[in-house]
Amino acid sequence: MKDSPNDLYQKLLKGDRRAAARLITLVENADPSARQALKMLHRHSGGGHIVGMTGSPGSGKSTLTCRLARHYRDEDRSVGIICVDPSSPFTGGALLGDRVRMQELSGDPEVFIRSMGSRGALGGLSVATNDVINILDAFGKDVIIVETVGAGQVEIEVVKYTHTCIVVTMPGGGDEIQAIKAGILEIGDIFVVNKSDRDGAPRAVADLEMMLETKPGTSEEAWKPPVITTMALAGEGIDELAAAISAHRGFLVESGLLEEKTVQRMRAELLEILNLKVSRAAENALEEEGVGAELVRRMADREIDPHSAADEVVEYLLKRAGR
Amino acid sequence: MKDSPNDLYQKLLKGDRRAAARLITLVENADPSARQALKMLHRHSGGGHIVGMTGSPGSGKSTLTCRLARHYRDEDRSVGIICVDPSSPFTGGALLGDRVRMQELSGDPEVFIRSMGSRGALGGLSVATNDVINILDAFGKDVIIVETVGAGQVEIEVVKYTHTCIVVTMPGGGDEIQAIKAGILEIGDIFVVNKSDRDGAPRAVADLEMMLETKPGTSEEAWKPPVITTMALAGEGIDELAAAISAHRGFLVESGLLEEKTVQRMRAELLEILNLKVSRAAENALEEEGVGAELVRRMADREIDPHSAADEVVEYLLKRAGR
Repeated sequence: MKDSPNDLYQKLLKGDRRAAARLITLVENADPSARQALKMLHRHSGGGHIVGMTGSPGSGKSTLTCRLARHYRDEDRSVGIICVDPSSPFTGGALLGDRVRMQELSGDPEVFIRSMGSRGALGGLSVATNDVINILDAFGKDVIIVETVGAGQVEIEVVKYTHTCIVVTMPGGGDEIQAIKAGILEIGDIFVVNKSDRDGAPRAVADLEMMLETKPGTSEEAWKPPVITTMALAGEGIDELAAAISAHRGFLVESGLLEEKTVQRMRAELLEILNLKVSRAAENALEEEGVGAELVRRMADREIDPHSAADEVVEYLLKRAGR
Repeated sequence: MKDSPNDLYQKLLKGDRRAAARLITLVENADPSARQALKMLHRHSGGGHIVGMTGSPGSGKSTLTCRLARHYRDEDRSVGIICVDPSSPFTGGALLGDRVRMQELSGDPEVFIRSMGSRGALGGLSVATNDVINILDAFGKDVIIVETVGAGQVEIEVVKYTHTCIVVTMPGGGDEIQAIKAGILEIGDIFVVNKSDRDGAPRAVADLEMMLETKPGTSEEAWKPPVITTMALAGEGIDELAAAISAHRGFLVESGLLEEKTVQRMRAELLEILNLKVSRAAENALEEEGVGAELVRRMADREIDPHSAADEVVEYLLKRAGR
């Protein structure tokens, strides 16, 4: 039997894992009943600390996330893990990294792991990921770790507005740090050089610290992103990383920036839902008889240019809404 | 003195390269006068054959593009090259690959090369790239090659609707083909195994051919994507590649699919302009006093959930448009 939105809501607040999993599936399927449950759950969210974990593939983010989750469990804090992979069409199932984790974390009812694939919808993935963060937040998870598979543009968008964003790198083959791309330096609150037993680790740390020091627009009172060295596989450096996350949280609370970050996050979330919504409305209008096909035909016949055609669709949308 | 849209239009039709370059810069800056010139130029476009060139970084796309351009020049056909790099914030200037090419192709007035960076606007890059394709098309280029730096999702979107899409790979380290990711097999009309002197090339060709044969939904009359081996640096296989492009063009014309592809392309272009347009309208609404900030505050205070807040913005937009 299918649960009503209210059933799911009630069960979720009581800590029913299967209800949480079902609601997430409804979110992924863009089921209208998910909207209802999300609406009811919203006032219960806001308690969790949201941690983003990004960096190049192979830098060891999955192992780091797993070790961090175990650290929190040892402190008796509950953990949600969302693994975002825009390049994978799969959703819900266990990705490779998950399988490793599941062996380590399975059986612990206080750890909730979920993978999010693309399903072909770029904008949709960000929105769905935010929905799942909110669900796990309302579900009472103390820490929610959003881990990305790579560090592509979609992935950076997804972790950009977390409370604490961790950027993971590793020593490069030569004297360079891998995967510190344009845009990623700006979003990191904590930097990790993982696989720190490899050649070039001290150099990687020094390079990173130099890059961070010369970052423009840094004021006296601003947070100074620390660079932590870890060996995630051996479990080394995890306590230091967790301490840095705590310190960052403390800084956010004391400086009043937690509030500001929450507002930024809400704004970004609202904008993404809006973008998805208006884009879908536009796409649907193009599907309507006599609108899209006719305009495209006129474009192909070189009667109207694409920008003017887009103006006509907008006119049509507004006219229809005004009816 | 600044040229008027009409001046640019007139000069461009007369073959003035500097006018073409200036108009492209206006497009990149989203200058309103670009819209006017694009509108006038539209009816002069449609003659060029648009070739997409994508594949993983390091597979040799730049060299291949350069060799292909020289091949067309030997046949006295004019060439436009657009190099799309979503990860680069730069636009207009010469990227690394361009510099190599420029040495080889510079001084030839019938080759026009342009790089397109991201400028931070994802949706914007696709739209701007389409505008530049249309400009070079109206400028009279016989072949327009759109080359991407990598094979990310934005890059695939950019080459997906070209007339002939070439996917470039190279033999992997072991027995696998590099960079044939989900989604890229579907968009290729021609596959190239470049650096075919490397170990594993025959295996890479065989693997690709097998993947293509088992591709679902292929009918008898459909185009069978060939797999071409090249050594771009040595100029080997370029004639075969050019012949495959010709054959594909011939197939498109005879089957009536050229028309269909043009329509698909127009539709995709229209949709992207629409998405950009409505997204910007939504974003601007959020900036307005008393709309965005107020809603975000209510979201942060857990009074309203993000999806309901998005509904309110849409209501506001429609109400305002109806005034």
